[in-house]
Amino acid sequence: MFDTDLRNADLDSSRPIAQNLTQWEYLAINSELNVADGHARQSLTPSQLEIVQGLPVLFADCERRPIEEIEREAHRSFLTMLGQHSYPQEPGRVLSCYSSSVAMEIVARALATRFETVALVHPTFDNIADLLRGNGLDLVPMEEDLLYQADLPQELLNRVGCVFVTTPNNPTGRVLSEARLTRLAAQCARSGVILALDTSFRGFDTRAQYDHYAVLTASGCRWLVIEDTGKLWPTLDLKMGLLVSAENLDLPVYKVYSDILLGVSPLILLLATRFADDAAQGGLAELHRFIAANRALVRNCLSGVPQLSFPDAGSRVSVERVDLGTLPTERVWAQLQERNVYVLPCNDFYWAAPDRGRSTLRLALSRHTDRLQDAIAVFRSVLAQH
Amino acid sequence: MFDTDLRNADLDSSRPIAQNLTQWEYLAINSELNVADGHARQSLTPSQLEIVQGLPVLFADCERRPIEEIEREAHRSFLTMLGQHSYPQEPGRVLSCYSSSVAMEIVARALATRFETVALVHPTFDNIADLLRGNGLDLVPMEEDLLYQADLPQELLNRVGCVFVTTPNNPTGRVLSEARLTRLAAQCARSGVILALDTSFRGFDTRAQYDHYAVLTASGCRWLVIEDTGKLWPTLDLKMGLLVSAENLDLPVYKVYSDILLGVSPLILLLATRFADDAAQGGLAELHRFIAANRALVRNCLSGVPQLSFPDAGSRVSVERVDLGTLPTERVWAQLQERNVYVLPCNDFYWAAPDRGRSTLRLALSRHTDRLQDAIAVFRSVLAQH
Repeated sequence: MFDTDLRNADLDSSRPIAQNLTQWEYLAINSELNVADGHARQSLTPSQLEIVQGLPVLFADCERRPIEEIEREAHRSFLTMLGQHSYPQEPGRVLSCYSSSVAMEIVARALATRFETVALVHPTFDNIADLLRGNGLDLVPMEEDLLYQADLPQELLNRVGCVFVTTPNNPTGRVLSEARLTRLAAQCARSGVILALDTSFRGFDTRAQYDHYAVLTASGCRWLVIEDTGKLWPTLDLKMGLLVSAENLDLPVYKVYSDILLGVSPLILLLATRFADDAAQGGLAELHRFIAANRALVRNCLSGVPQLSFPDAGSRVSVERVDLGTLPTERVWAQLQERNVYVLPCNDFYWAAPDRGRSTLRLALSRHTDRLQDAIAVFRSVLAQH
Repeated sequence: MFDTDLRNADLDSSRPIAQNLTQWEYLAINSELNVADGHARQSLTPSQLEIVQGLPVLFADCERRPIEEIEREAHRSFLTMLGQHSYPQEPGRVLSCYSSSVAMEIVARALATRFETVALVHPTFDNIADLLRGNGLDLVPMEEDLLYQADLPQELLNRVGCVFVTTPNNPTGRVLSEARLTRLAAQCARSGVILALDTSFRGFDTRAQYDHYAVLTASGCRWLVIEDTGKLWPTLDLKMGLLVSAENLDLPVYKVYSDILLGVSPLILLLATRFADDAAQGGLAELHRFIAANRALVRNCLSGVPQLSFPDAGSRVSVERVDLGTLPTERVWAQLQERNVYVLPCNDFYWAAPDRGRSTLRLALSRHTDRLQDAIAVFRSVLAQH
């Protein structure tokens, strides 16, 4: 069922067989026990609910104020809340997008105007690989373990126009430390290679909330970073992605951006500002406690199941991988689906070697705790049959 | 100033000189007298205001209901309101996108997997041309006058994989009649060429509110249509684009779609449903009267100015072109800008021959009538100096 040859089959008009992780997620989207996609689907906190109840006032506010001012506020509130205290002020250097994936599409198209080959962390969410490949770029996998242990081989840097890293990574939760980013940026600077980061999950992990842009800029490398409000808050996918770039990036990102959009809705920008301000005033710490509790719930409920392990011990992001060892992962997945519990098979995260994801499933933690508990109870009972 | 060599210059990091129509629009976005972009910026009607005041209730509704149901309702309400009574029900054949331009990017990328050349109506909004070219496709211009007068030359059909038509067209407002569409679709069917339509402006023109999909399907041709809620209502750019496709399209649109998005916010879908239902209950006729009144205002205020003419006599869309004859259009544009009045130079609509747009400017009509009047008064006074 997870055979990746399906990717190449001409199945476009028949949704039931998924061609990528997003299509697997779509199968789950209408289920009460959907723990597949990484979108935030937990309940609003009381202070978030208050913001939502003020939506009509925010709407009227947007009608009165210049969008430039609303956008500037959104960037300041969101980036500062992430510990990203310095960020570019020049026009065009922080571009608001409909989502991080739209930012990624823009990056991929801009890279493809200059380069043929990109090095991409392995594993990572497959749409990064698919958007780069879909825009004609060849990919070289960078194994996560190697990336975190040592400098990149010069031979690799000579082959590529860009090094792309997701940090914290999805699904593993691995975070590039400031020291590691400093060395990586220096390497890229020396080799004239662009360093691109997707930091969409960094809101979940204080270890990723240092000033990335300062490190990147100090290195002199050409850099770009994709940020995202979309994973953090249950705003019904009202979200913005940000595409932030170095002064010396020298890629036509603003041209590609303006072919695709004029801007994000000011109501979404204002909502992001309010949620970010709420996060800065304690909401983020509350979110961290919530995710940690849901992670503990998953690990506790599944503890003692033979073969089962959690490969990402240190992860703080809103997803959790479960390794089923030699259990028949595909059958377990199908049995869960029969009971309306949707989880994500991990094959496609290993975009260059899908077999290596064969024994793992990914669970989303940003869910109502009760529903997560129900889903995990089903999971445990299915596992008990094997 | 409108020299199109600017497109090729490396000006990406300096926003002030525009590389496309959207960048010109961005210059205007913060001005009170912005009549540049085609986004809906008029006041909400009383019944629309009531919907907006119910946003917190809609939000709570979205949290409770399956997104599939909300999405199905949005498609039904919006398409039916447009007179599009039949539409595909199969999964994947009506894809909800963040915007019509995101739908267009998906179409361009999907076309580029199979074809090298596309025929595109000329003139039309330049981002259609730029998105197709940006994805590696070569374009053949189809002059609007010829397209409306006679069958396409077989020689043209032999050269291209797809014929792309904007109807009603932006900026001219020209509409493909049912009879003309029937012939065009038959030609495309015979030649095995995909027929693609962008009907984003059809909400403004009852002559475009016939069942396009029935005509296209009956012809047997491979077709796709891009629809858009974004031009009609002042919802602060909370909008959806739809990508609707034939059963026999045989392009990987769903794969490219799912690389870029999982779906549109259910709150935006629900808002579209409510606005569409309001439109069906008289709101659309009210909008038509509003746009017609603003068009009459522009034409009356500028009547009698020597040289000046309105080339699109029959247009009902929410933009109006003004031809300045031999007056120095670039100087007029610059003088307007000095007074904070932003209009759109038309050069870039003529994506294959920008000089032909040299004497025309485009005004947006979906604005508060008072502000439009102020902008036009400045326009008249500037013209009086020449």
